[in-house]
Amino acid sequence: MRVVRVNTGDDARYGLADEGSITLISDEPFAAWELEDVVALAGAKLMPPVMPTKIVCVGINYRSHAKEMGHKLPREPVIFLKPPTAMNGPHGDIHAPVGVGRIDYEGELAVVIGRRTHKVTPQEAGAHILGYTCANDVTARDVQSIDGQWARAKGYDGFCPLGPWVETDIEPFDLLLQTFLNGQVVQEARTSDMIFDPHTLVSFISGVMTLLPGDIVLTGTPSGIGAMEPGDFVEVKIEGIGSLINRLV
Amino acid sequence: MRVVRVNTGDDARYGLADEGSITLISDEPFAAWELEDVVALAGAKLMPPVMPTKIVCVGINYRSHAKEMGHKLPREPVIFLKPPTAMNGPHGDIHAPVGVGRIDYEGELAVVIGRRTHKVTPQEAGAHILGYTCANDVTARDVQSIDGQWARAKGYDGFCPLGPWVETDIEPFDLLLQTFLNGQVVQEARTSDMIFDPHTLVSFISGVMTLLPGDIVLTGTPSGIGAMEPGDFVEVKIEGIGSLINRLV
Repeated sequence: MRVVRVNTGDDARYGLADEGSITLISDEPFAAWELEDVVALAGAKLMPPVMPTKIVCVGINYRSHAKEMGHKLPREPVIFLKPPTAMNGPHGDIHAPVGVGRIDYEGELAVVIGRRTHKVTPQEAGAHILGYTCANDVTARDVQSIDGQWARAKGYDGFCPLGPWVETDIEPFDLLLQTFLNGQVVQEARTSDMIFDPHTLVSFISGVMTLLPGDIVLTGTPSGIGAMEPGDFVEVKIEGIGSLINRLV
Repeated sequence: MRVVRVNTGDDARYGLADEGSITLISDEPFAAWELEDVVALAGAKLMPPVMPTKIVCVGINYRSHAKEMGHKLPREPVIFLKPPTAMNGPHGDIHAPVGVGRIDYEGELAVVIGRRTHKVTPQEAGAHILGYTCANDVTARDVQSIDGQWARAKGYDGFCPLGPWVETDIEPFDLLLQTFLNGQVVQEARTSDMIFDPHTLVSFISGVMTLLPGDIVLTGTPSGIGAMEPGDFVEVKIEGIGSLINRLV
């Protein structure tokens, strides 16, 4: 299934997308739900497919990115948080804050949590995951250097585009991830290059903080990070999921 | 007013506390509300007085703590985030995670946001603040050193005790803040020793991420940080607000 969240004018509604239409559902996808009205996919205002209570991100998690940054491979995941106000939809514009210098894209596979997750093993983690989607961990690179802590650099409003939908029927362990800047490939890796796979990450994080339905885990970015300029279009495309396309303005 | 949140058995309800009783209110304190039933303060199960969508914290923000840590005074606030799942109530136990080493108290003044706050000036910030309360920015000190990023060390479930209530009628600029470990004073400072005062912090943060009603800003800790052992009681006491008392177990 492809779980979307759509702005119906009055309200945000969850639905299931297929080739040309969205079937709205009666409740959140984490609960029991029934199929309701069908609306056209074309013209639907897609919102971020979930609204998390927290967005947990992982630092260096691709071997290629560790090499690019001159880092040793970490022994444990290094985690940080983006605030929920950073959420941005598929096709939402990313607004460049004034005076922050360089702004980078970071294409990532996002895990969407399906139920309360506290101290699970990697083997148990899969049953706690609703599905996977594309994310862009937008980063004000100069601010990141100044602060040392990454919360500000990665926490501006709109700095976490997510979507287009949550694909629930996919294995996350060996997918092609590509980022395109104005149509040119700038990042290309397989998720099998991750140092800690998605189930291991969910297990590790759940030993620190309880994950709740809709919470998001960003699994790190591969090599090829770089700057965006106003007007640039950035696409994060993941095999078996789809494309997340946003513009910096 | 002293805004509390109380577990009434069925539900979490907001109320206003006075010397011996709590008058429940009909809605959140951020909205229009009416007075409802009165319950006894003694025996009431006080919960964290608000449930934030985010907890924004500030690194070095007391001159005394900067000196203790051997840091220069920062030119801008360095911010980081604790997840909402770190919330803990007044009198809630802090559970020591297994195998994390040293766990420290950090007594802090907490700002509680009253309405949507986006790019406000320090002069405007006061009108966006519901009030102030006591917080303990509990920190796994060894994990903090290992990670560099502070999200894990400060993000364990229950690592953000808050309360006992939100005092809405107080000026935050020159209050005595004390932390007691098993009754002995271990931190003592006036909030006038802050490098960036609470209104300046809210202004700065609101230029990065929109603050929402109930969101919390922890304003940093003064000198005197130190470790807790299981069984220790930690009290954060702020002049004009009250005491937040928690036990490490």
